[in-house]
Amino acid sequence: MFYGYFNGTIAPTDQLAVGITDLGLLRGYGLFDYFLTYNGRPFQWDWYWARFQNSASRMHLKLPLGKDETYAIVMKLVERSNEAISKTGKATPTDVGIRFVLTGGYSADSISVEKPNLLILAEMIHPVPAIQYEQGIKVILDEYVREMAEVKSTDYKRVILMAEAIRAARASDILYQKGGEISELSRSNFFIVKGEKISTPDRHILHGITRKTVMQLAQSDFQVEERPVLLSELYDADEAFTTSSTKKILPITQIGELTIGDGHVGPKSKFLLERFDELVKTW
Amino acid sequence: MFYGYFNGTIAPTDQLAVGITDLGLLRGYGLFDYFLTYNGRPFQWDWYWARFQNSASRMHLKLPLGKDETYAIVMKLVERSNEAISKTGKATPTDVGIRFVLTGGYSADSISVEKPNLLILAEMIHPVPAIQYEQGIKVILDEYVREMAEVKSTDYKRVILMAEAIRAARASDILYQKGGEISELSRSNFFIVKGEKISTPDRHILHGITRKTVMQLAQSDFQVEERPVLLSELYDADEAFTTSSTKKILPITQIGELTIGDGHVGPKSKFLLERFDELVKTW
Repeated sequence: MFYGYFNGTIAPTDQLAVGITDLGLLRGYGLFDYFLTYNGRPFQWDWYWARFQNSASRMHLKLPLGKDETYAIVMKLVERSNEAISKTGKATPTDVGIRFVLTGGYSADSISVEKPNLLILAEMIHPVPAIQYEQGIKVILDEYVREMAEVKSTDYKRVILMAEAIRAARASDILYQKGGEISELSRSNFFIVKGEKISTPDRHILHGITRKTVMQLAQSDFQVEERPVLLSELYDADEAFTTSSTKKILPITQIGELTIGDGHVGPKSKFLLERFDELVKTW
Repeated sequence: MFYGYFNGTIAPTDQLAVGITDLGLLRGYGLFDYFLTYNGRPFQWDWYWARFQNSASRMHLKLPLGKDETYAIVMKLVERSNEAISKTGKATPTDVGIRFVLTGGYSADSISVEKPNLLILAEMIHPVPAIQYEQGIKVILDEYVREMAEVKSTDYKRVILMAEAIRAARASDILYQKGGEISELSRSNFFIVKGEKISTPDRHILHGITRKTVMQLAQSDFQVEERPVLLSELYDADEAFTTSSTKKILPITQIGELTIGDGHVGPKSKFLLERFDELVKTW
C-alpha cells in the first residue's frame, strides 16, 4: 500500500480523491514532476525541486509548500509506504516513485484560479523490462512538437491518442519531430552517438534531470553537444538512446523503418548505463 | 444545491470526487461538453449529443452510456437539483447548466486508458452581466491556434495562462489569430458583420452549437458565410460578436486597440440576440 499527501493530509493513495471542480480535471490546468528514490533518498532532489518550482512559476501557480517542508513530506510518504508494505509480509521495496501534481485548484466558475491543489504521491516503480535494455526499443516518428515543452504540464494527449499506432507498429514509444528537427520522445529525452560525439536536442524539449545527469557523466569520455538534432543524422548515427527517471539510459535500435547502426545495442549506450547504475548505487 | 452523476451514482456535486489516478487529472486526457436547459429542457440536445459523441470518438474513448440513458440522467439531475433548491426556500431556478466530462479513466500505470470516467453535472448558470450586452466587450488578440480545436478537449491552459494579461488590458477574453487568420475566442466563436453579410471562421475552431443556431437564425435576413476571416477585415467591419451557450450573442466593440464600427453595439447584433431570445423562450 502506498501513501500520498493532498493539501495537508496524508492517507493511503486509494483513499485520496480530488473534487470535481478542480481545474486540472476540468481545464487541463496542471503540472507535475516525477522522480525516484535510490537507497531511500530522492535522486537529484535539488534539480527536481528547481524544475518543479520553475514549472509552477511558468504556469503562474503559487507553490503552497517550501522546499524543506516538501522534502519532509516526501520522506514521510516513503516511510509510511514501506511500513504498510512490510506489514503485509511482502519484501519492502526500499525505493519508490514520487509524483508531484499541482493544479489550478478548485474553481467556482470553472475557469478562474483561486488556490492551487497539491498532490504528492508515493508510487510503485514500473521498471523497464530487462529485454528492452538487451535488445533496444523501437519507436515511431510523429510530426509534432509539444506546446510549452519546457514546462512539465499534464498535457500528454498526443501520446495517448497515438497509443494504437504505437501498438500497431510494435513500437514502445513515439519520437517527435517537426520539419525534420527532432525534439524528444513522449516522456523522455533523445540522444544520438556518432564517434566520440554525443548529441541531444536543445529546444522544444523538457529539460530532463536524467538527461542532465547523463550529460555530466559523459563529459569525461565524450564530446557532449546540446544542439538541434536533425532526422537526417539518424542515417549515419552509431547509436541512439533515450533518458528518463524510469528508463535511465534505454537504447533505441529502430526508428520507424530505419535501423540505427547495426541494429544492436551499442557499446557507448551500455557504458553510460553502467556509469549511471554506479552513480545511483551509492546515491 | 446541485446534483451530479459519476460512473453510475447520483449525489450532491460537492460530495463527488475523482480518484487521483484519473488520466484527465494526471495527463490532461479528457473532453467535455456544456449546455443549458431552457424551460427545463436541454437546448439543442441532439446537436450537443452528436458533438459529445464525436469528441469521444476522436479521442478514442468509448462512451459508457447511450443517448437516451444520458438524457434520462440529465433530466433526473435537473429535477433533483431543483427539489433541493426549493427546500431551502429559495426560488427554484428552472434552468441549469449541464456539464459532461469524459476522461481516460483510472490508470494503473498513469498512461494507459482502461475504462473512461464519465461525470455529468448540473451547475448554476453564470450569466453574462447585462452591461456587457449594452456596451459590448473588449477582447485582446493572441497569436495562437488551439490544437485539435474541433474536439472539445479539456485543454484550456492558454486562456488561464493569459488571465493576467486579459485583466491588465481591462478586457473580457482573448481572440486567437495565427498569421493574420482569426479562429475563435477562448471559449466561444467569432462573427463579423459587414453590410448584409455575416461571416464566421470555418477552421481551427470548435463547431459551436450556438454558432450553428445563430447561422440558422440569420439565414433569412443575411448572407451567412463560413470562411477564413482575416485580421485585416476587422478594420472595416460594421459589427463583431461572439457566440456560446452562456454568452448567446455577445457584441464585441473593441479588439486590442481597435474599435469595431463606431464602438457601440450594432443593430444587427441586437437583432440576432432578439431572435435568439425568442427561440429559447419557447424551447
